[in-house]
Amino acid sequence: MALPDGFIIALEQVCEVRSGEAVAAMDPGVDAGNLGAGVVALPTSTGQVQSIIKLCSAHGVPVVTHGGRTGLAQAGVSAPGQLVVDMAGMNRVGAPDPTAGCIEVEAGATLHAVQEACKAVGRTPGIDLAARGSATIGGMISTNAGGMEAFRCGVMRHRVLGLEAVLPDGTVMSDLTRVTKVNEGLDIKHLLIGAEGRLGIVTRAMLKLEPLEQAAATALTGFASAADAVTAFHAMRSAGGLLRAEVMWRAYVDIVSQACGLPEVATACSGDVLVLFEVAGGSFEDAQGRLEASLERLTEDGILADAIIAQNVRQQQDFWRVREDSFAVESTWPNGLWYDVTVPLDQLDAYARELQDRVSGLPGECFLSVIGHLGDGNLHITICVPADATVSKKQADEAVFEGLKQMGGSISAEHGIGLEKMAALACHGDPGRLFAARLVARALDPLGLMNPGKVQALTS
Amino acid sequence: MALPDGFIIALEQVCEVRSGEAVAAMDPGVDAGNLGAGVVALPTSTGQVQSIIKLCSAHGVPVVTHGGRTGLAQAGVSAPGQLVVDMAGMNRVGAPDPTAGCIEVEAGATLHAVQEACKAVGRTPGIDLAARGSATIGGMISTNAGGMEAFRCGVMRHRVLGLEAVLPDGTVMSDLTRVTKVNEGLDIKHLLIGAEGRLGIVTRAMLKLEPLEQAAATALTGFASAADAVTAFHAMRSAGGLLRAEVMWRAYVDIVSQACGLPEVATACSGDVLVLFEVAGGSFEDAQGRLEASLERLTEDGILADAIIAQNVRQQQDFWRVREDSFAVESTWPNGLWYDVTVPLDQLDAYARELQDRVSGLPGECFLSVIGHLGDGNLHITICVPADATVSKKQADEAVFEGLKQMGGSISAEHGIGLEKMAALACHGDPGRLFAARLVARALDPLGLMNPGKVQALTS
Repeated sequence: MALPDGFIIALEQVCEVRSGEAVAAMDPGVDAGNLGAGVVALPTSTGQVQSIIKLCSAHGVPVVTHGGRTGLAQAGVSAPGQLVVDMAGMNRVGAPDPTAGCIEVEAGATLHAVQEACKAVGRTPGIDLAARGSATIGGMISTNAGGMEAFRCGVMRHRVLGLEAVLPDGTVMSDLTRVTKVNEGLDIKHLLIGAEGRLGIVTRAMLKLEPLEQAAATALTGFASAADAVTAFHAMRSAGGLLRAEVMWRAYVDIVSQACGLPEVATACSGDVLVLFEVAGGSFEDAQGRLEASLERLTEDGILADAIIAQNVRQQQDFWRVREDSFAVESTWPNGLWYDVTVPLDQLDAYARELQDRVSGLPGECFLSVIGHLGDGNLHITICVPADATVSKKQADEAVFEGLKQMGGSISAEHGIGLEKMAALACHGDPGRLFAARLVARALDPLGLMNPGKVQALTS
Repeated sequence: MALPDGFIIALEQVCEVRSGEAVAAMDPGVDAGNLGAGVVALPTSTGQVQSIIKLCSAHGVPVVTHGGRTGLAQAGVSAPGQLVVDMAGMNRVGAPDPTAGCIEVEAGATLHAVQEACKAVGRTPGIDLAARGSATIGGMISTNAGGMEAFRCGVMRHRVLGLEAVLPDGTVMSDLTRVTKVNEGLDIKHLLIGAEGRLGIVTRAMLKLEPLEQAAATALTGFASAADAVTAFHAMRSAGGLLRAEVMWRAYVDIVSQACGLPEVATACSGDVLVLFEVAGGSFEDAQGRLEASLERLTEDGILADAIIAQNVRQQQDFWRVREDSFAVESTWPNGLWYDVTVPLDQLDAYARELQDRVSGLPGECFLSVIGHLGDGNLHITICVPADATVSKKQADEAVFEGLKQMGGSISAEHGIGLEKMAALACHGDPGRLFAARLVARALDPLGLMNPGKVQALTS
């Protein structure tokens, strides 16, 4: 399918437009199909985004919006006949206000750029994830990103105080409040958060800031079971100052520590379930002291199997590198099937054991690699499939999703639905909610031009 | 207007229905017009609510949903020809799960009942307000209630993990997840939160819990200005353990301490702007020690004008009573005009001074009484109008709302819009957001039967 006559010419009057070789030279990001449309618009202002949407609406051209192209659910995949709107040119980061506790940023700014601006005034946006260098604020809002600090600072939805967006008909919604308490009728910004580009294009946001901790210490800890790890999490949380709690099952640590040349991390700590705890303090020594005291109590209570506190920045970085280089699992097991689920903490241990049993029952010598954000119960699961085995998506889905909704968990924790989980959402999502979502999407986007065919079908 | 023939008879097959004297005997709550419909349905299950909505839809009867009837924006006012759905009969409180950190409750449960259930397992729902004994969870969700803990635990929107509701066409949305991280397409529950009953009836919710602090100490502190109070808030927050920070301008303390027979509270502490700080600790003595250390630092830095730490539970209760008995201002100044706004903290001092100037310019000897939740910048303002003066709503609105939206604040912090602020919302709300809200409301409630005529007109 080609774009309509005259559309490109009109678009070039609005902003930079790339096609052909210029698009071929661009990095498609996580998914090879992201730039399949072959034509990319690069606006630098909200006014230009508005003009683009109006043109697309007039010519019936579907729009796929791109941030850092780090999305893991194929929400950014595009096809000929569609237009990619790349927000990289709208990347201004305003001055953070430490007194009001907020910062205004454009959608194309990377998380890392925002974090650095905030750090200069002793604040943090309260969200962090491994793709910080390329993930953009607009993309993180559209996918309601989560990450490592969600158990205490919430997910992206909870970090957004105000939002500016261009709606599917070209209307600009400019709702850039700088405060938490706003009760002014239907809160439309919460519809756009997590909508994966289906309800318009996010152009700017006002983010909430938190005080930046002065120093932190990290320990790699080992437990006999996920149940013990959860008990330890609650104890560490109650003791105060807990910043992060990242869980890694043994198989994951073995694979990644080998792949990134840090085998000493895997042998540093025994236990089937490992947790990286990061604790805040006024100084590194102070944080280390708090961490030591908490770990001693856990040992006395018979919960902790083993632990090692990072003695210097280098060791701390090594521990975190093993946690963050999760793509090493994908490289080592290229036929692996990835999942991103949430399990309520009272069910985590049982779910992990039952999942293990179900995966053992799959064809071939499949096994599990699991990491997660312990405080949220958010697990990133890979079913590692040997080259000589064949496991269908359906078999894997059944193994991973069984019981999740019934226990109040989620089949999609933080990556979103995109194309990847549409079938799973249709199967497991609450029918009442999906019905309402269709009504809402059709009302705001009657032409169905915003990232069509993703997340949810507009007809039942 | 009478209800259609056959409607009441059909309704009586579904649930208890009150009319006539039985309704006259009910407490209308904050607003005398709440029970104006004269007919009240009292469902005890989600199925009954669904049947009621289907009946109303079939007979074209508008629905006004009631919780504790403590709303302050007239969202619960009803008229003949409408049906009040009173959720008091759906007040079951599930067992709180301290490990998963959640509790399932029915919409008619009071906040106090939920707080007590959570306290038994060392948890709290992370939200508190003076009307806790009568305000219901459903009402708090529908008005996105705020209160005293929002600067650290968020508003009601941030406490809701999952939601069950009956939509305007009778569809039940049952989205009772028990976890924070759920990314499964458009998040419809966030549309219902704060919708003031315009998009359906909230029937059940899954609330997020926080660890309950073991003990707390309170200090009444005095400052020369709001700017100093904000500086102190940030210092107390960074020191850790700050639970509450409630600001009261001098005139408020004078009126209320007199009215409730506690004049010693007004004279206990000097300063134009008073703040009640509550700090957590492992024991009362521990909390007191932390509070003392923080106040000493503020004194050394020349920020604190005066302070008194409550020495016992009785004194602590007296301080809080003066803060919570805010209706004493209304009783003392019955012609007063009330407002509920949010001011970004970097603007709080300037806004308070300029508001003072604008109120001084009103006809007669008007003066201000102001309290607020300091951490959020949420101010509850009364323009006290002497009996011999006449101040129009328009004059008062202009004095209070001037500049608020431009500085990123809000004309409606936590009470909602209801009937009271419809004109103000139409005037100050972002047109793009209001446009989208109309599309969404018409899509979900095409017959316009859910709390019609409140919040926002569905036609522009």
